[in-house]
Amino acid sequence: MPQTDALHGCHLIAGRREASMPDAFRATNPVTGAALEPLFAEATAGEIDQALRQAEAAFEADRDVPAERRAALLEAIADEVERLGETLVERATAETGLPNARIQGERGRTCGQFRLFAHLVREGSWVAARIDPAQPERAPAPRPDLRRMLVPLGPVVVFGASNFPLAFSVAGGDTASALAAGCPVVVKAHPAHPGTSELVAEAVARAVGREGFHPGTFSLLHAKAAEAGVALVRHPLTRAVGFTGSLRAGRALFDAAAARPEPIPVYAEMGSTNPVVVLPEALEQSAETIADGLVASMTLGAGQFCTNPGVVLGRRSPALARFARRVAAGVAATQPYTLLHAGICEGYQAGVARWASVAGVRTLATGAEGGTATPARAVVATVDARTFRAEPLLQEEVFGPATLLVEAEDESDLLDTVRALGGHLTGTLWGTDAELARSLPLVNALRRRVGRLIVRGFPTGVEVSPAMQHGGPYPATTDARSTSVGTAAIERFARPVCYQDAPASLLPPELQDDNPRGIWRMVDGTLTRAPLGARGAMQEKAQLDSSPSER
Amino acid sequence: MPQTDALHGCHLIAGRREASMPDAFRATNPVTGAALEPLFAEATAGEIDQALRQAEAAFEADRDVPAERRAALLEAIADEVERLGETLVERATAETGLPNARIQGERGRTCGQFRLFAHLVREGSWVAARIDPAQPERAPAPRPDLRRMLVPLGPVVVFGASNFPLAFSVAGGDTASALAAGCPVVVKAHPAHPGTSELVAEAVARAVGREGFHPGTFSLLHAKAAEAGVALVRHPLTRAVGFTGSLRAGRALFDAAAARPEPIPVYAEMGSTNPVVVLPEALEQSAETIADGLVASMTLGAGQFCTNPGVVLGRRSPALARFARRVAAGVAATQPYTLLHAGICEGYQAGVARWASVAGVRTLATGAEGGTATPARAVVATVDARTFRAEPLLQEEVFGPATLLVEAEDESDLLDTVRALGGHLTGTLWGTDAELARSLPLVNALRRRVGRLIVRGFPTGVEVSPAMQHGGPYPATTDARSTSVGTAAIERFARPVCYQDAPASLLPPELQDDNPRGIWRMVDGTLTRAPLGARGAMQEKAQLDSSPSER
Repeated sequence: MPQTDALHGCHLIAGRREASMPDAFRATNPVTGAALEPLFAEATAGEIDQALRQAEAAFEADRDVPAERRAALLEAIADEVERLGETLVERATAETGLPNARIQGERGRTCGQFRLFAHLVREGSWVAARIDPAQPERAPAPRPDLRRMLVPLGPVVVFGASNFPLAFSVAGGDTASALAAGCPVVVKAHPAHPGTSELVAEAVARAVGREGFHPGTFSLLHAKAAEAGVALVRHPLTRAVGFTGSLRAGRALFDAAAARPEPIPVYAEMGSTNPVVVLPEALEQSAETIADGLVASMTLGAGQFCTNPGVVLGRRSPALARFARRVAAGVAATQPYTLLHAGICEGYQAGVARWASVAGVRTLATGAEGGTATPARAVVATVDARTFRAEPLLQEEVFGPATLLVEAEDESDLLDTVRALGGHLTGTLWGTDAELARSLPLVNALRRRVGRLIVRGFPTGVEVSPAMQHGGPYPATTDARSTSVGTAAIERFARPVCYQDAPASLLPPELQDDNPRGIWRMVDGTLTRAPLGARGAMQEKAQLDSSPSER
Repeated sequence: MPQTDALHGCHLIAGRREASMPDAFRATNPVTGAALEPLFAEATAGEIDQALRQAEAAFEADRDVPAERRAALLEAIADEVERLGETLVERATAETGLPNARIQGERGRTCGQFRLFAHLVREGSWVAARIDPAQPERAPAPRPDLRRMLVPLGPVVVFGASNFPLAFSVAGGDTASALAAGCPVVVKAHPAHPGTSELVAEAVARAVGREGFHPGTFSLLHAKAAEAGVALVRHPLTRAVGFTGSLRAGRALFDAAAARPEPIPVYAEMGSTNPVVVLPEALEQSAETIADGLVASMTLGAGQFCTNPGVVLGRRSPALARFARRVAAGVAATQPYTLLHAGICEGYQAGVARWASVAGVRTLATGAEGGTATPARAVVATVDARTFRAEPLLQEEVFGPATLLVEAEDESDLLDTVRALGGHLTGTLWGTDAELARSLPLVNALRRRVGRLIVRGFPTGVEVSPAMQHGGPYPATTDARSTSVGTAAIERFARPVCYQDAPASLLPPELQDDNPRGIWRMVDGTLTRAPLGARGAMQEKAQLDSSPSER
């Protein structure tokens, strides 16, 4: 088992340790404030170029790797990460201040994601194959044979997130889905947990080697400077970017990608305050239950989740007042929290101070504060809906255990407020079935602004499954058409290619007549797993006409 | 039947004629050079705002229109366009110089597209519904009920293309797919065929009225100034953009969209030279057949197709020389052509002159030139592969009946040249099965650079069908993950939304337990049309695990 004291502090480029600019920075233990050994390198332009060139070489070399081998790679990564054992848990705990149990749970999720994608790749239908067989006799012009499927984009750059040192970092969801799609990955480690990143990167590289993939399939670079991130996005061989972090950083990467000679997609998941709307009857019935659930959700992980409920909207009423008192009591009783790193800590203090600076915002309660290096106390404040709508900074995310309770005058004031919201990852509704049915304008207004609409629950807790949608309208993400959690995340790193009249020898297995992979395919507009021309396919004969045309 | 002389020259905003800046420009007959009545208006900022506000109002008003009614709208549009009869054909012919038969064929395609999307919407599975049923007993945490489907983005701005006055203009593929997805559409008419645009817009508006949709579902604006286009893209209510045209204009719109406070997707289909690679054995066997097919493809529609074969790549050999002589003879025998408008004519002359200005480019043959207002003669020129790779302007699209024959020294020079190509809509391979099988590096290199790979055919002729892919890497399009032709085009104008633990009363029909629409859904990771919980669904029980998690 690798030891933490064996950390080398180098980048890992196509399996090799590199560090032309060594000794650049150390990690810090956010609980003690102590610097953690070793020193880590800072990526140079040359190392960035090298990592992308190796990724490109891997993409060309492993183009035709069968799905079974790719699935095996994903499983091998899960195995290797698990084999890091307590070394990984200890280092991650030291670098993040997160408790052991959380890191262990996150490791389970991380390995689970790889195995889920392995299953998806092995099953194979994700390529969305479509076949329109030739109609040589069609008049006035014969129809050619058309066969379309998704193919990987090429090298993907992934930025590790600080708040998920495992599940959205080096071997996180972006890396898993990009590798699953067939894209090599270059990860920029988050500088808050470089040792954790190194351990996981070595595990990934071992899996790449063990499964016989080109070593350029995976590289890890360390960098504290924002320039390195922009250089990775601008590199001509980069074909897509996955990012989780702040609005400012995400937008900078998006802008850099859009300004390239050849623009590339950036999947940046950024700020979100995940509004929770509480309707009167639900509050009448269960103000206390909802309040207790809210306090638990807003303080989970010290509030450092992108789905943290940062805004609660309700209508003035005795029940809302009861609810607010209960939330305040809950917040007042919270433990002291430690944030992930000094940057988040400063941002949190600044955000809470920003709220307090707005006339009309009133702090209802604060929790206990402790003596760690990056401390935070939970906060709940309140403001009227009119002020909330008029002051854009109240809609900005305050990353940490803080929630703003927005009080509307009446139903129409509440609806106006929901309509004034920007884009969010999630929106939550608390209402009885009857009042939800009466509140369709509000439900629809909220749905339009979010990627996931939760009823009588809380936004934290994101299932990794086929139906998950983790992505919402800007500024929640730069691309609401995609998800960064769940199996549909693989679609971000692929594009369709259509073969016209190609001989069988040029067709990938997914598009061959006899459907050797047994995948679901759309044949003549109808889904089927039958081989082409077989009775099964004919029974489900398409009704879709297609028309000849020139273009 | 409406008469051409009854054209009003106004915008059509939510069914009303508006023209606060009237009498701005006339169309020109490209054959005679004569100005065509009437004068058309130029869109003002106020009219742009009005059109988008009406579109937004329509989006809100018709949010829950059943699929059957939406399908009926699409069919009504096809009917109304057909009812324009000869009036439409006459005006389109006069404004474009395209022959009657071509306009009639294009009308068939246009109406066929609407009916194809009507079928798609009625069938309903395009929403890609996914359901992960709740697992209340799961440990350590219960799994919530998750239901995900595609929903429309909101108002879409479509830019009419000059080279398809019907099929990629006011009621073209972008409009059809956006309306099918449930998005209202604001079209900016191409100023080269404003009368055709007005006729079609009136037909669409009649269908919108007849089917009882909000009038803001469709608007048409006329504008010659580039500023109007940018203003449409920048309007805060615009949620997506469809464009077909030049690289310069498309990139300007893409840049404007990326620079918005909230960026939006731009689906711009721009320049493409659609490389055709001819391999030695195929040339040995059929140099003449390939040459004749190439000349027919490159001059089809006077070469004004985005799939026009503008570059042919081959290896020096006696067979290639034979092929070149035959192409030259074919081009020399071509008729004089008339281009769509003065802008294209100037661009074509400039492009051909640009080729001639490069040392090493040799004109092999030119066709006849006629005396129309915007004339063009076909051109075939040749250059060696090294010069082609070294001179970027030779890769730029020359829109019109011109093809550049690039001669490589040998196999590796040919491969280098394919690897130097930018992104294209299509790539074509002529080779025997045996030599294609021997040429996998070349096949793969070409496939990576295109959206559609054609074997032993020609790129013009784009089927409108489920498996079509009309979109390639930049600069062919700004988003290679999408297609602008075929049923998958609908996906451009939608995004996924996930409902978590929503009561049945809030779920759209597509996500309800009993699957009232009978669509294909992914339940627990497996495709099925069975109702939720039914035996059929259970038999196909998912193997996909999902893991609980916090985020």
